Amino acid sequence: MGQDKNVGSRQDVVWKALDRFHIEIPSWGFANTGTRFGKFVQSAAATSIEEKFADAGEVNRLTGASPTVGLHVLWDLPNGVADVEKIRGLEKQHGVKSGSINPNLFQSQEYKYGSIASPSAEVRRIALDHLLESVEIGRALETKDISLWVSDGSNYPGTQSISRRIGWMEEVLGAMHAATTEGQRLLIEYKPFEPAFYHTDIADWGMALHLASKIGPRAKVLVDTGHHYHGTNIEQIVAWLLHLDALGGFHFNDRKYADDDLTIGSIDPYQVFRIFHEILSAPATATAGIAYMIDQSHNLKGKMEAMVQSVVTAQELYARAVLIDRETLSALQDECRLVEAEELFRDSFWTDVRPIVRAWREARGLAGDPLQQLRESGYVERIAKERAEKNRNSVSSYA
Amino acid sequence: MGQDKNVGSRQDVVWKALDRFHIEIPSWGFANTGTRFGKFVQSAAATSIEEKFADAGEVNRLTGASPTVGLHVLWDLPNGVADVEKIRGLEKQHGVKSGSINPNLFQSQEYKYGSIASPSAEVRRIALDHLLESVEIGRALETKDISLWVSDGSNYPGTQSISRRIGWMEEVLGAMHAATTEGQRLLIEYKPFEPAFYHTDIADWGMALHLASKIGPRAKVLVDTGHHYHGTNIEQIVAWLLHLDALGGFHFNDRKYADDDLTIGSIDPYQVFRIFHEILSAPATATAGIAYMIDQSHNLKGKMEAMVQSVVTAQELYARAVLIDRETLSALQDECRLVEAEELFRDSFWTDVRPIVRAWREARGLAGDPLQQLRESGYVERIAKERAEKNRNSVSSYA
Amino acid sequence: MGQDKNVGSRQDVVWKALDRFHIEIPSWGFANTGTRFGKFVQSAAATSIEEKFADAGEVNRLTGASPTVGLHVLWDLPNGVADVEKIRGLEKQHGVKSGSINPNLFQSQEYKYGSIASPSAEVRRIALDHLLESVEIGRALETKDISLWVSDGSNYPGTQSISRRIGWMEEVLGAMHAATTEGQRLLIEYKPFEPAFYHTDIADWGMALHLASKIGPRAKVLVDTGHHYHGTNIEQIVAWLLHLDALGGFHFNDRKYADDDLTIGSIDPYQVFRIFHEILSAPATATAGIAYMIDQSHNLKGKMEAMVQSVVTAQELYARAVLIDRETLSALQDECRLVEAEELFRDSFWTDVRPIVRAWREARGLAGDPLQQLRESGYVERIAKERAEKNRNSVSSYA
Amino acid sequence: MGQDKNVGSRQDVVWKALDRFHIEIPSWGFANTGTRFGKFVQSAAATSIEEKFADAGEVNRLTGASPTVGLHVLWDLPNGVADVEKIRGLEKQHGVKSGSINPNLFQSQEYKYGSIASPSAEVRRIALDHLLESVEIGRALETKDISLWVSDGSNYPGTQSISRRIGWMEEVLGAMHAATTEGQRLLIEYKPFEPAFYHTDIADWGMALHLASKIGPRAKVLVDTGHHYHGTNIEQIVAWLLHLDALGGFHFNDRKYADDDLTIGSIDPYQVFRIFHEILSAPATATAGIAYMIDQSHNLKGKMEAMVQSVVTAQELYARAVLIDRETLSALQDECRLVEAEELFRDSFWTDVRPIVRAWREARGLAGDPLQQLRESGYVERIAKERAEKNRNSVSSYA
Repeated sequence: MGQDKNVGSRQDVVWKALDRFHIEIPSWGFANTGTRFGKFVQSAAATSIEEKFADAGEVNRLTGASPTVGLHVLWDLPNGVADVEKIRGLEKQHGVKSGSINPNLFQSQEYKYGSIASPSAEVRRIALDHLLESVEIGRALETKDISLWVSDGSNYPGTQSISRRIGWMEEVLGAMHAATTEGQRLLIEYKPFEPAFYHTDIADWGMALHLASKIGPRAKVLVDTGHHYHGTNIEQIVAWLLHLDALGGFHFNDRKYADDDLTIGSIDPYQVFRIFHEILSAPATATAGIAYMIDQSHNLKGKMEAMVQSVVTAQELYARAVLIDRETLSALQDECRLVEAEELFRDSFWTDVRPIVRAWREARGLAGDPLQQLRESGYVERIAKERAEKNRNSVSSYA
Repeated sequence: MGQDKNVGSRQDVVWKALDRFHIEIPSWGFANTGTRFGKFVQSAAATSIEEKFADAGEVNRLTGASPTVGLHVLWDLPNGVADVEKIRGLEKQHGVKSGSINPNLFQSQEYKYGSIASPSAEVRRIALDHLLESVEIGRALETKDISLWVSDGSNYPGTQSISRRIGWMEEVLGAMHAATTEGQRLLIEYKPFEPAFYHTDIADWGMALHLASKIGPRAKVLVDTGHHYHGTNIEQIVAWLLHLDALGGFHFNDRKYADDDLTIGSIDPYQVFRIFHEILSAPATATAGIAYMIDQSHNLKGKMEAMVQSVVTAQELYARAVLIDRETLSALQDECRLVEAEELFRDSFWTDVRPIVRAWREARGLAGDPLQQLRESGYVERIAKERAEKNRNSVSSYA
Repeated sequence: MGQDKNVGSRQDVVWKALDRFHIEIPSWGFANTGTRFGKFVQSAAATSIEEKFADAGEVNRLTGASPTVGLHVLWDLPNGVADVEKIRGLEKQHGVKSGSINPNLFQSQEYKYGSIASPSAEVRRIALDHLLESVEIGRALETKDISLWVSDGSNYPGTQSISRRIGWMEEVLGAMHAATTEGQRLLIEYKPFEPAFYHTDIADWGMALHLASKIGPRAKVLVDTGHHYHGTNIEQIVAWLLHLDALGGFHFNDRKYADDDLTIGSIDPYQVFRIFHEILSAPATATAGIAYMIDQSHNLKGKMEAMVQSVVTAQELYARAVLIDRETLSALQDECRLVEAEELFRDSFWTDVRPIVRAWREARGLAGDPLQQLRESGYVERIAKERAEKNRNSVSSYA
Repeated sequence: MGQDKNVGSRQDVVWKALDRFHIEIPSWGFANTGTRFGKFVQSAAATSIEEKFADAGEVNRLTGASPTVGLHVLWDLPNGVADVEKIRGLEKQHGVKSGSINPNLFQSQEYKYGSIASPSAEVRRIALDHLLESVEIGRALETKDISLWVSDGSNYPGTQSISRRIGWMEEVLGAMHAATTEGQRLLIEYKPFEPAFYHTDIADWGMALHLASKIGPRAKVLVDTGHHYHGTNIEQIVAWLLHLDALGGFHFNDRKYADDDLTIGSIDPYQVFRIFHEILSAPATATAGIAYMIDQSHNLKGKMEAMVQSVVTAQELYARAVLIDRETLSALQDECRLVEAEELFRDSFWTDVRPIVRAWREARGLAGDPLQQLRESGYVERIAKERAEKNRNSVSSYA
């Protein structure tokens, strides 16, 4: 933010940006989650798709920025397409739409050695059937994106053929793509490790990009910010995917070590700001379709608080990035005036946008401070009471 | 191994070393395990302490090198000291002794914000009680070591006081140490992350070492080979702990990314060889008490096969390290004859010790090839049949 | 910053903190530096100790926060104690005092296989002589700290004895400590790798801490923020060192991959804020003696701009940390109200302290915007002209 | 190696493989190198292209496996094409051919902010001119490969436009590719960091692959084994590049932390074995053109010893990988018999191939033990004497 821009114009540009900025919240973010060492059960956690929609609706009511909820086929539509009608009712009831459809290829026992990359043709067929059903569900719900995370891999050198598995994935994903229709997209996620520990079949953006390019024009790459090696420059990957018109969307979360699934910006907020800057630097044509989604695991934080906090943080970091005077920055970059360019860049990061965002909320009839509003509303206490018993006895869906 | 040593003397030195080399296997290594994304249930997995002892006994029968089995208090002695009698019976029945006693401070709901480092004095009291019971169990079973892994930590900056938690740990561990008696040891493990993602209260060897030094002479440091940052030189830490007379033992496993708990030497066998070299370089007084233990998570490999394979791999890597001509090596190191020193060092790594180890086994009345013997014995098929039903319905103990 | 604190009291607390906050700048930060692939020579780089003092004086004139300059014995006092008189003259001339004394144990050809950990007793003697001279220089210049970075290590497994080298270091450092006198301190730095690639003799804080404890009460640990593995929680190490009364000071810089020596806060400003929070949380007795120092390598940025920018950034991040309401935070931490604690913590991080810092500067008779003042002063243009010829022909001191 | 294969057939298959296996050595591997902290000068280091060819010839005489020497345009052909004649004479004189041609885009002062990705059109033109001259040199010397490492990048967020730089690289590399003629290849290397610390323009295999695909069929990807993030599965990248028919060759070296440029297999020999396995698993059509090259920095080891050691190690690890019974392995992988597959795989790794390799050497008229032969030959002593004076005064070419 140069000194030359007055407060009024700053508010203007941020408000316009916030009007456009939506971030999807995942149904599973309201359910109990944990690590391999156990799960700390929360009384207020959602135990059914009805409760997840209720919670998502509440978050959207508070923030006005999360109008869609990502669905997980296995957990949210256990009967597949047959559950679509119910979901539609919930959409209406809670004022949020279904967002991305997330198939599950990691939980069933038959996927022990892989799903779409399994050496077994039968297992690959089972996986494909699930994917085809997911496509159908997406179509029935009139949502755009199917978000595909493939956890396939192996744990020990020599135990699987890395190269033959590439071919198997190409086949299955090709068949899946063939089943999509106009208006649908297939987002391919990558991840270097976990739950596979030696090799993961789609380990990095290069692999996801090849698969997307290979299978067809409706496939794009999905960037989960927690799925990178230490030291990776994520915003650079974003810039490359934008350059190649291959960026489908994001799963936002933060991490310090591995795929920790912490709330966005909680460890490295400057990185999120830099990612938004790359997006805002690209032509609108390349960025129009980007799906912003949250994918976090609130093991200790309250589910509702964590979700509201995440949406608010995403908005604020986006607003900071919006403020960068990109024209001046470009000129400074071209002249290699490093310190001046950096100072201009950081000036927006350090600008306290919170009053502007708060004013935007109030102007839009929303709570100025959604977290405080949540606390005062008594919502969490109420659902904690209602769900406590069910949570005590729950076998959770996540792990 | 210099050319100057003839085959006979090589066999001699390896055989003597193997006679002394024992590695403890963990009871939980026979049970179903998984990741936060789920668990692939194995029909042959052990579902009770009886089955775990049976399996451990079988591994020891095959390898002759794993005479003790590590016990997990919560899972193996759910009634605490009252279960000691039962354990003694199992020891006799299966020909393996109880080894290290492993308290559990991570699974109960009260430990959500920590156990011995919890801000709640009440929770710390619960944790201490469990630790004191573990000490008592160890005494009753006449085992030497209590292996303490503390998973305490926090997930987000600012949410806990790192510094006050240090003081709380000193208090609780001090009280635990005070309860130990001669012949008992308290091994303090460290781990940089997981299940806590921002800070883990005992994150590295320096922290474990301070706590051990602070609380008393019976406390030592436990090195889990999977609990380090990328790039850490583990054998150097081993050398330092030996120098400080503070090395209590090892949890062996291998990893490529995080704490993957893969079978020993499966990713980086040269590293295990180097660790053994540091131990073999130290005075016997510093190494006499080292407890070698396996701590792995066999998510995909068959439990029995993985365990036998691990013991055999440990023996072979130990045997290779035994062969290093340390006297000549020292001289080359002192003269900084780098390439010669390295070649001498690696010569032992590349020496195929498998025939020597096989001959040792046969001379000791054991199976020459324990893995093949396991396969031929039909043991796994038998237990798979017996336990299939129980495993299908099992709620596993590990995650 | 809670809403309850008014702007006036915030300014008050920040101003008081800034009055106390000084950060040392290194003489070598004004000289040409580079990577192993080469050096991009800057016309305005300092080529002599006179020019370094001039630059340091200018930075302090602009910022009022860097009254001392770290000296490098080999480069700044090539004649040892004989150069002290000259340095004293420069101190007077440029209004900045000598700060930490930095011995050099990595550049001479005799240190090829190590200095204080070399297997050669003769080389260790040479190293000790240099250290003793450094102690003497420190005494003659009446500075407090000798900052010791030991780059010793080995590049290949087996080529050096990790364990015997520990003993050699204890000897040499013990002798060095014995030569210090009241008012002097010996700060021991650690670093996991580079220039040694397999093992570095003082690799982490645990090793530095043992050496400091072993040799005597005047030895403390020096934390260089760039000297850690990926994922390391540096503020936790700071908290432990404070707990153990063993924290001597900092070398601040930032990094994305290895020891990149970038300007402070340029990659992860939130981390610097968290480090300052740990310090501000500790009792004043434990933190009174902390030496804040910059140690950066301005390969591309202009030397003067980078240094001013670093001091300003350090002040601003410190000011943000000062604002944390630590009493309320403690209460929230104790009650494990995670989201509230985090929000309180981050509120200070996001507070735009720049106007307060600017006002402090103006109230102290300093330039409100030191970077802009530097640009307007013409200082860089002037020295660039004066030094261009010398720099073209320079053999730089750093690499 | 299954028990079913007799010793004779093992020797057969290894010998045939060794006859085909050549690995290029780099001219700069004989010159003095160091880190940014300095250079330890070796008396026997090569100081001229004549000496480098002499050394390379000697290595090939000893090993019979390094018939080509990689050339660095700036250091070895400072006069460009005009030096080709001289190089041809050296080829004849020393019995080794020129191998890959390595342009230099990192050393000149004009590349401070980048070369082919510089914002300055003039600098990009200078870079392109150098690349075009390199193509011409390659043609004149009748070598196949131009190996291009681009060190371009930036040190601080915001200081350069990551996305516009992609376009500039495409342009320059496109023009370079257009100048190549049949029989020439352009190998594009990637590297995540150093000397740039925030972003490197060609940071990973995905970026290199896009550039290669974009500019034309003669461009392939070059894998330097030291240029990856911690935890990266390099053999998987190799498998993908083979699948995509895009693997041009390797720069072999080993590392523990960053791009340490240690001798091949010195830190993680199992990884090299796994890389060779992926290559040997691919169809011959995809692997026929792979250029095996060494790229190491022998800072402490003697240059000649390190080079001979590297060639020998590469041969031995290749021979181990050759022994894998890939047909049986495939079957075990397909049936997911994990432990059996792994044991089969590792059996070859653990097989002591050294006697077979030695016998191959002797059968080919080479020294059975090249390292010992080097020592006995007195070559190093002789060149050390001849070159000592020059090295003392040398300004080395590397850093």
